[in-house]
Amino acid sequence: MPIHSRSFQAFTVSGIPEVHPGDSLILHVTTALEQTGEQLHNGDIVVVAQKIVSKAEGRYIELSDVEPGMEALDWAEKTGKDPRLVQAILDESACVLRWRPNLLVVEHVRGWVMANAGADQSNIIGADGNRVLLLPKDPDASAKNLRLGLEAHFGVRIGVVVADSVGRAWRVGTVGLALGASGVRTVDDIRGQLDMQGRELKVSIVGTGDEIAAAANLLIGEAAEGTPVAVLRGLNLLDDNQSGADLVRPSADDLFR
Amino acid sequence: MPIHSRSFQAFTVSGIPEVHPGDSLILHVTTALEQTGEQLHNGDIVVVAQKIVSKAEGRYIELSDVEPGMEALDWAEKTGKDPRLVQAILDESACVLRWRPNLLVVEHVRGWVMANAGADQSNIIGADGNRVLLLPKDPDASAKNLRLGLEAHFGVRIGVVVADSVGRAWRVGTVGLALGASGVRTVDDIRGQLDMQGRELKVSIVGTGDEIAAAANLLIGEAAEGTPVAVLRGLNLLDDNQSGADLVRPSADDLFR
Repeated sequence: MPIHSRSFQAFTVSGIPEVHPGDSLILHVTTALEQTGEQLHNGDIVVVAQKIVSKAEGRYIELSDVEPGMEALDWAEKTGKDPRLVQAILDESACVLRWRPNLLVVEHVRGWVMANAGADQSNIIGADGNRVLLLPKDPDASAKNLRLGLEAHFGVRIGVVVADSVGRAWRVGTVGLALGASGVRTVDDIRGQLDMQGRELKVSIVGTGDEIAAAANLLIGEAAEGTPVAVLRGLNLLDDNQSGADLVRPSADDLFR
Repeated sequence: MPIHSRSFQAFTVSGIPEVHPGDSLILHVTTALEQTGEQLHNGDIVVVAQKIVSKAEGRYIELSDVEPGMEALDWAEKTGKDPRLVQAILDESACVLRWRPNLLVVEHVRGWVMANAGADQSNIIGADGNRVLLLPKDPDASAKNLRLGLEAHFGVRIGVVVADSVGRAWRVGTVGLALGASGVRTVDDIRGQLDMQGRELKVSIVGTGDEIAAAANLLIGEAAEGTPVAVLRGLNLLDDNQSGADLVRPSADDLFR
């Protein structure tokens, strides 16, 4: 049985500048790619860190502008967190699932279960602790917008994933997850496919969108590297009908909420 | 600020034959690589599907040999599963965490939270539903054994990950996880590192071992492709002091068990 090797490459896009509210990520990515002589190819999947999407969309909150309500004051006392930060987190959340000192695990209004609703105070210029960056308002829409701009510029058909590093139940450490996606098969339903012996498969739905985000996260720097964009080339995972939202397990189907 | 692009490649190792109990995976992988003219390089990370590790280690159970006890009969009635299969699952488990019709989510004796303790009836030759494949007894030891054999053969320093596709809380679909690892930085502790603005990072521990498994899982076929081994080349993630066990969050630290 001749079996051909399959492969993909992943590389960072160097030279993305610090992103400011109102910036065009389409322009940043195309400029950075062209400065290094790189093009996008058909089938490429561009993974961008949610942080630069949030920055471009100006998703900042000034804590000095936040008036904490009763619930925020209550959680702030329990967790020892700044009540204004807690209010900002609650404003992004459907409910609080768990808490510990200095930690609130919430269900974000978009269904993601995560610490502090993704509100982040790191990698923000001139913040002095007063400024908080929230997650993008609609990462699927952000991904689609970036995809259409890059497709038009390079004349190719690609996918875009908006990725974040998110903690997990049961496992140590964060991994890349696809908060938003456009043009990408985020959920690969292989139910009904048969194995090499003709039996039905144990694994039937693969979270390919999250695997793409995790793969890119091996290159996307959290720290001072400043490389918030990566390209995955060689995968055959474009799909017009899926999104990051497809990766959110509905609460009613979930055994751990 | 000159920033260099970082990159890695991932490719499957073609030509791994059906694996039988007692087979040497070292021999299978070296033979398959050499038949395609490929070598391992320093820094490569070889990811193998747990299934071929289990097969080589003969981790089969014949259901006709299993005598279900009272607890297994009880869970079998609740879930509608074969009581002998339930007994095989319980024998691999520390406790049952959740159940549904046809599903037992357990804590495996090695700490992994997963459906049916990873017991699998797909991709097993001549099984006719009587044969079940369990997870490797000690995937970290399996990874180490394979790593040492491949290192000796190719004269290089590499890492090995034993990966499985595992479902998750809150998210749709399975993703690759590192059950076992040797020579690989599975948990990247970046606490204390500063961001580009000199503030401490939000994300402080990255589950790089699981990200490696997820990346490889984009190539390792679940179905009839028969490509249970992939190589990741270009990452700088070798580490002599970590293992797959480091990715298991201790029960006492876990908010969702």
